[in-house]
Amino acid sequence: LTLTNSDQNIRDWWVEQLEEAGLTVWVDAVGNIFGRREGIEPSAAPVLIGSHLDSQPNGGIYDGALGCIAALEIVRTLNERSVETDHPIEVVNWTNEEGSRFQPAMFGSGVWAGQTSIEEAYDTTDSEGIRFEDALEGIGYLGDEPAEPHEEYEAYLELHIEQGPRLEATGADVGVVTGIVGFTWGEVTLNGEANHTGTTPMDHRSDALVAASDVVTGIRRLPATLDPEVVATTGSINLEPDSINVIPGEVSFTWDARAPTDDLVRKARERVLSEVEYAADREGVNSETVDRQHASTVTFPERTVNAVWNATDQLGLDSMELTSGAGHDATHAAAVTDAAMVFAVSEGGYSHSPKEFTTDADCYAAANTLGTAAINLAAPEVRLE
Amino acid sequence: LTLTNSDQNIRDWWVEQLEEAGLTVWVDAVGNIFGRREGIEPSAAPVLIGSHLDSQPNGGIYDGALGCIAALEIVRTLNERSVETDHPIEVVNWTNEEGSRFQPAMFGSGVWAGQTSIEEAYDTTDSEGIRFEDALEGIGYLGDEPAEPHEEYEAYLELHIEQGPRLEATGADVGVVTGIVGFTWGEVTLNGEANHTGTTPMDHRSDALVAASDVVTGIRRLPATLDPEVVATTGSINLEPDSINVIPGEVSFTWDARAPTDDLVRKARERVLSEVEYAADREGVNSETVDRQHASTVTFPERTVNAVWNATDQLGLDSMELTSGAGHDATHAAAVTDAAMVFAVSEGGYSHSPKEFTTDADCYAAANTLGTAAINLAAPEVRLE
Repeated sequence: LTLTNSDQNIRDWWVEQLEEAGLTVWVDAVGNIFGRREGIEPSAAPVLIGSHLDSQPNGGIYDGALGCIAALEIVRTLNERSVETDHPIEVVNWTNEEGSRFQPAMFGSGVWAGQTSIEEAYDTTDSEGIRFEDALEGIGYLGDEPAEPHEEYEAYLELHIEQGPRLEATGADVGVVTGIVGFTWGEVTLNGEANHTGTTPMDHRSDALVAASDVVTGIRRLPATLDPEVVATTGSINLEPDSINVIPGEVSFTWDARAPTDDLVRKARERVLSEVEYAADREGVNSETVDRQHASTVTFPERTVNAVWNATDQLGLDSMELTSGAGHDATHAAAVTDAAMVFAVSEGGYSHSPKEFTTDADCYAAANTLGTAAINLAAPEVRLE
Repeated sequence: LTLTNSDQNIRDWWVEQLEEAGLTVWVDAVGNIFGRREGIEPSAAPVLIGSHLDSQPNGGIYDGALGCIAALEIVRTLNERSVETDHPIEVVNWTNEEGSRFQPAMFGSGVWAGQTSIEEAYDTTDSEGIRFEDALEGIGYLGDEPAEPHEEYEAYLELHIEQGPRLEATGADVGVVTGIVGFTWGEVTLNGEANHTGTTPMDHRSDALVAASDVVTGIRRLPATLDPEVVATTGSINLEPDSINVIPGEVSFTWDARAPTDDLVRKARERVLSEVEYAADREGVNSETVDRQHASTVTFPERTVNAVWNATDQLGLDSMELTSGAGHDATHAAAVTDAAMVFAVSEGGYSHSPKEFTTDADCYAAANTLGTAAINLAAPEVRLE
């Protein structure tokens, strides 16, 4: 978990590796750790590559870490082969991508990209009331550098595991990510009437759980009726009084709908609200809805996506175009510079689970794609074999 | 709540009233409090009338109490009018009808009727680990008399509020209860796969909450498809991981289905299990079902029900035949002797709520019915005006 002793240990290791690789290392005011390998042209904008080293309470070993290790391995390989690039290459470990301990997720890259203020980040507390700033200082990673781009960037590239089953299902070696879905998150509260399960006739009931269940199945049906690229889920539900022999009087539950276009995200949200309205009417309960979070879709520019496509061609890899169903630090970096992502195969599609697994061959395929794409952008003349 | 200081206070008051009315009072080993008014024929079997004085955390003032107060008022009225009955009349306050603090409900009458062993009752603990026997002793109501019928009974009659809206809806003055529904209670656990809400395609999901919601709506539909006399409810649901952006991997929920015949109760349970099977298959989740409790239907004998019918005729009341949708102490008493019940109107059908309300006129109608029915059984020659 971010800003714990384990996070401190992996950060210490990361800094040591960056320094051993001869990089100039700095830590910014939200704890993002950068390492810079100079280019031939000192005034050229750097290509930034990296991901995050923090994890989830029950997470696997690939999510985030693979992208950082691959970035490190790329600068080591350039060093070993004495390859000079026109543009500098910077590697980064973003703070708190996961958002398990401090919400929202991805606020290391978010503050850096100007999407979240640093004051807001500092004052965020975990479930035990510990402030983010104090936790960051506690592990010794409250850096001196401002949490913002120190100059213009040439590009941002990130390797991440897919966290889904599509690459494995199609047999592709690697995924070329053209964008990140947008999403709508919200919460619904339904108020019916708690009453005796034995003495209340069926036509005298206003059962909030029945109305909620109607919406849950409506949300399950939504992608099939609206657009197959939509995904939609109810992840949380709570009810009162929650007793075997009392009709549920109050139920609250969440929605999460994602889609590759902002128009579809808007339509998905409207469908959820319609389902709530219909179900509430049918069961005679009152409804309140609150939007919890909204993210616009991200479309990566052709320039950076083509650098990745070309890399897979150069490497003779079987690649597949994908839109990321999860948010990534690339979401924020895309607001600063041209970004793109490489996805590695996730066997079985497991995510945030110890079952998460990527074969060595798939790790190499994705890392080589990242490295070749980075060189395509930082040193267009260079061809590594 | 049963066996609290409030319960002790109302019990002390109850004993005082019974003694002031000249009754012989005793407390049995589960704290049931009896008072006896002798009849003309010392060998005649007593007619037992009463209900319970315990309540719910958020209960109203009529549930249970009205039946005890009516029983007390009946012996007072017989005293005032110097009416002698052939059979003795006994009044009773049963311990722990509600089951809010110690489960199951109705175990004062249950032990008395031999349905639950006294050892089991004594060792039952509340949510703070306090034993029933210790709580009973603590308020001074661990009685010396055995918790069993001390002789054969002539009949048991109980007045209770309806706890439902049917009497009010039809405009009847009083309900003649011909029996108590049977019920089936159980719990279902569904195991799907917790996964990322953004990266898991809709056709790769095994969403335990969607399957549970299918069953909830199936249970809501059950009375309409099986038999309109059935009522069926899901009162409780719990899920893991219960997070806005994780597909629910495990969900457990309850069922409660009630019907006026044992055959319908059996069919209702089978329908619930079928709904579970279909929903689990549809969503690709595993299911486990556990029966939690089962109660057979109770049909009161013609002799006692007719005593109530005749009472409403004698009083010129508009009466309605009902089956009780809730369990009552009469459920257990019916295993010992011929039983019947009188229901008083519940305005709005509210139950276990401070909104519970019965007008004075409806209280009188029900109490007069109880008293007249008791006299019909205890002194067939007597006619009170």
